[in-house]
Amino acid sequence: MLVNGKPYRTVWMEGSAVKLIDQHQLPHAFSIATCPTHRETAEAIRTMLVRGAGAIGAAAGYAMAQAVLEAPDATFTSCVEQAASLIRSTRPTAHDLFYAVAHVRGAIERVSSLAEARQAAVHMAEQLADENAKAGETIGRVGAALLRDGMRIMTHCNAGWLAFVDWGSALAPIYHAHRQGRSLSVYVNETRPRSQGAKLTAWELAQEGVAHTVMADTAAGSLFQQGQVDGVMVGADRIAANGDVVNKIGTYTLAVLAKHHGVP
Amino acid sequence: MLVNGKPYRTVWMEGSAVKLIDQHQLPHAFSIATCPTHRETAEAIRTMLVRGAGAIGAAAGYAMAQAVLEAPDATFTSCVEQAASLIRSTRPTAHDLFYAVAHVRGAIERVSSLAEARQAAVHMAEQLADENAKAGETIGRVGAALLRDGMRIMTHCNAGWLAFVDWGSALAPIYHAHRQGRSLSVYVNETRPRSQGAKLTAWELAQEGVAHTVMADTAAGSLFQQGQVDGVMVGADRIAANGDVVNKIGTYTLAVLAKHHGVP
Repeated sequence: MLVNGKPYRTVWMEGSAVKLIDQHQLPHAFSIATCPTHRETAEAIRTMLVRGAGAIGAAAGYAMAQAVLEAPDATFTSCVEQAASLIRSTRPTAHDLFYAVAHVRGAIERVSSLAEARQAAVHMAEQLADENAKAGETIGRVGAALLRDGMRIMTHCNAGWLAFVDWGSALAPIYHAHRQGRSLSVYVNETRPRSQGAKLTAWELAQEGVAHTVMADTAAGSLFQQGQVDGVMVGADRIAANGDVVNKIGTYTLAVLAKHHGVP
Repeated sequence: MLVNGKPYRTVWMEGSAVKLIDQHQLPHAFSIATCPTHRETAEAIRTMLVRGAGAIGAAAGYAMAQAVLEAPDATFTSCVEQAASLIRSTRPTAHDLFYAVAHVRGAIERVSSLAEARQAAVHMAEQLADENAKAGETIGRVGAALLRDGMRIMTHCNAGWLAFVDWGSALAPIYHAHRQGRSLSVYVNETRPRSQGAKLTAWELAQEGVAHTVMADTAAGSLFQQGQVDGVMVGADRIAANGDVVNKIGTYTLAVLAKHHGVP
């Protein structure tokens, strides 16, 4: 998505370094952090410099690719396994992270030389990031069909492009509809205790020019009660086969409020 | 109630000065602010140095008494009226404040000399504060009958003794039952945007030795969903004849959650 008019992803690879938008600095400063080795990338995940399911997954894939590039020939397998353990320990709740680590490991098992392994690891990490960006774009295109002109949407935490490689999940349809010229406004829950709504979602929406209001989480009920919310769009850390959703604390409260008021 | 083992009210009069617990400093420091004239007392209300329906009412009564003491004989009536306007402008939503100003004004109309008026104003302000403290104590005694040993109660904002002259409203039954030896625990909603729960309610409960947990407002839904809340106790800025309640933003969300989960 655009930042000051230029296209960015949240995380990408340049040579053997991983670059990522420093989400600790937002919304006060937009700066790019550089992680020269897989250790710094893992630390960026652990300290939430990069956060959000999809962005963590892509960063973990790149960290694995870095580890494969860094591992000496003589101790290749043990170094890669050590790195995989380190990366998996940074965010034990992040499914995308485990998925990415497993996929990069899988890619290097299907080749016949270490040189090919290094190429395959970087290629897989890039592919995982591309797939994530593409998924967000698809969610945006499909989900935008649900959004009528003038709708007032409430969202929780950050399920925008900062949480993914690009586009996002819950916010992707809003960006898509906005670019098609539909007028939407977004109620942004502050999302205590870490305030990702106030810090990240509001910044994203401002960059894209989408009208929005940051509000205390406590204010959600009154807005529903006054009929000022036309829909709720949230992300999900996981979705079970029966449709149950696991997501940031506070999502359940919004679900009960939405059900009570008949809001989709 | 006790602070470091000594009994305090939130606001009281010493000579012609009004003293009050500085609620801006809590929970980091316990300090008493002195308001030498009605202007400083009015300013303390306006800047929320003193807050909470009952405490504001008592402070307004004392401020009116100060104004009556300060008004020169020659311009007595106009000075008192000016002070009444000033005090009324500090918190236009506070019913108790208007009630207190009207009662002190009423008291000085029933006397035959300015000396008697000054005595009557101070007497009425003291009476209003005493009535408020007594009401809290009665709420505590009556409400405690609702609380069984071991109950986990959620509360919102601050409806404890800091919001009144003494005892409080929603928390008074908890204090009463706790002093009778019942074991209770309190979930304290942080209560954004001003965080009165985290700053004031938690401090009160700690002073009284009541077990409590400060939580992000967003966490309320999950606690209900997990069956960890046995009751909700909140204050009210106003209660309409039909039972409708006006209270701090976020109260409605708790009401919907409690209803959805069948929690009283």
